[in-house]
Amino acid sequence: MRVVALAGGVGGAKMVDGLAQALPPNDLTVIVNTGDDFEFLGLKICPDLDTVCYTLAGIANPSTGWGRADETWNALENIVALGGPGWFRLGDKDLGTHFERTRLLKTGCSLSQITDRFCKSWGIIHRILPMSDDPVSTIVCSNQGEIPFQEYFVRLRCEPKVIGFKFNGVKLARPSPGVLESIKQADLVVICPSNPWVSVDPIISVDGIFDGIKPQVVIAISPIIGGRAVKGPAAKMFVELGIKPSPAAVANHYGSKQNDGILNGIVIDNVDEIYKNQISELGFEVLITETVINSPSARLQLAQNVLLFGRNLLESFT
Amino acid sequence: MRVVALAGGVGGAKMVDGLAQALPPNDLTVIVNTGDDFEFLGLKICPDLDTVCYTLAGIANPSTGWGRADETWNALENIVALGGPGWFRLGDKDLGTHFERTRLLKTGCSLSQITDRFCKSWGIIHRILPMSDDPVSTIVCSNQGEIPFQEYFVRLRCEPKVIGFKFNGVKLARPSPGVLESIKQADLVVICPSNPWVSVDPIISVDGIFDGIKPQVVIAISPIIGGRAVKGPAAKMFVELGIKPSPAAVANHYGSKQNDGILNGIVIDNVDEIYKNQISELGFEVLITETVINSPSARLQLAQNVLLFGRNLLESFT
Repeated sequence: MRVVALAGGVGGAKMVDGLAQALPPNDLTVIVNTGDDFEFLGLKICPDLDTVCYTLAGIANPSTGWGRADETWNALENIVALGGPGWFRLGDKDLGTHFERTRLLKTGCSLSQITDRFCKSWGIIHRILPMSDDPVSTIVCSNQGEIPFQEYFVRLRCEPKVIGFKFNGVKLARPSPGVLESIKQADLVVICPSNPWVSVDPIISVDGIFDGIKPQVVIAISPIIGGRAVKGPAAKMFVELGIKPSPAAVANHYGSKQNDGILNGIVIDNVDEIYKNQISELGFEVLITETVINSPSARLQLAQNVLLFGRNLLESFT
Repeated sequence: MRVVALAGGVGGAKMVDGLAQALPPNDLTVIVNTGDDFEFLGLKICPDLDTVCYTLAGIANPSTGWGRADETWNALENIVALGGPGWFRLGDKDLGTHFERTRLLKTGCSLSQITDRFCKSWGIIHRILPMSDDPVSTIVCSNQGEIPFQEYFVRLRCEPKVIGFKFNGVKLARPSPGVLESIKQADLVVICPSNPWVSVDPIISVDGIFDGIKPQVVIAISPIIGGRAVKGPAAKMFVELGIKPSPAAVANHYGSKQNDGILNGIVIDNVDEIYKNQISELGFEVLITETVINSPSARLQLAQNVLLFGRNLLESFT
């Protein structure tokens, strides 16, 4: 079964880790959000791409989920000691990635070429694609005005109240090479338990991706468990936008096939079993299982459950 | 006694360390070579300024003389692991300096403003001035063509045979604010035991500096001891330019006052006593003393000897 996964940051990386354990290299393509990308200290930073790659390479910081394991912070500490900006936490090992990516971009390499090169260096055997090689910038529209995503997320600790989102540049952004082909050839599209508003929406806003996904069997894993996000501001965003955060809200966000949406089924956590009927009535298939996936074995188990759920959906449609 | 010191890299930093121990803040201004400055990984690197400042701040690597003490190398190691350039050794703490300097330059600060700011952060109480805020690039003309200094020095390990030198941009470079004033107000100018060709010549090639120094009492400390440079390619350069490396060659390089040069006296090491008569006959005053200055106390001792030598010369002229 050929699978395409749409992934954002830490939640996406964990799910991708499980899928990568479950699937051979040719059967998994991961399309990663680049709307969070930004420039800091003159370096091009791609937080979601790095989190996914570091996780698959086994070099991610296991306690934070982002950044590198066994990291040092000497560069940043010395920048701050000189009065410079330190609000975005860049470790020394991590800096190596941003330096080399920035250098290669200046020589004319595309982000997808660079990502491919880095994956080879890190021994990653599955295919990781940025959603686009063109710049897209997620902007959080808030009660404090329009704020670039990393400023909202890191510097302002998600404190501003969200009104909406913009993905600057997305109308001109083309999917990176291989994105539309991999979606077309996929048997199953998995939307990882990433933030629907700021991790997944940028991906499906890139020209051709929504339309490419629509005819496929699409499963989302709810990032909302027991009314809260495992990590990050997804639940807070739902609340501020007037929506009760729940797996049902996540399913509705992507929309059912009957309602011109993209989603066939949703995977929800055991603690959210109460939503099963509601979600089914909205027109979605539901799989209830353990979705907290901190250990490698839990990730593999969820991936196997998701793939089986997908296979069953696929068979029921054909 | 007001002193201006002209300094290059490691040898200059050691001498400046001694002078800073011997003189109160208002009596010492250090003018530092910036001809070695270059860009690497998109960062502005000023090797000589940093070596002088790190040494005065007590944060220099004591074994290399350059870079930071207790350094880590995670960024560079990870750049190299990704196939990027690693020929210039930048430690993680050191990177903090280059990041913040590059950032401030982009905001419109001058190199001398930034240096002043960094000195305050590092608790340096003496005045450190880059020779110029304008870019000057030392080029080594060699049997392998024209090579930017750091490429010659670090990447090619000084292997190409030297034919001459160019200081690109020096004709347009103005002395940084305070340089000419401090020289004019100085009682004594000390040329540190830095490489005459590539550390001191760029400084005295900046418009107004040679002419400003000429009427002053000027003492050089020979960087050549026993026919060899304590560090770096100074002796090799003398040989390749057809000159026997010796304290006499160093004195002649700067020239005596009688021969339209800038030098009144030279400080030579005990091992070079044999050159005393030759140097005297060339029209220079000579001080023979211990000039290997690895310990702080040895640096202070040499500084005191140099200052006494200077005071005697000053009195003999007035």
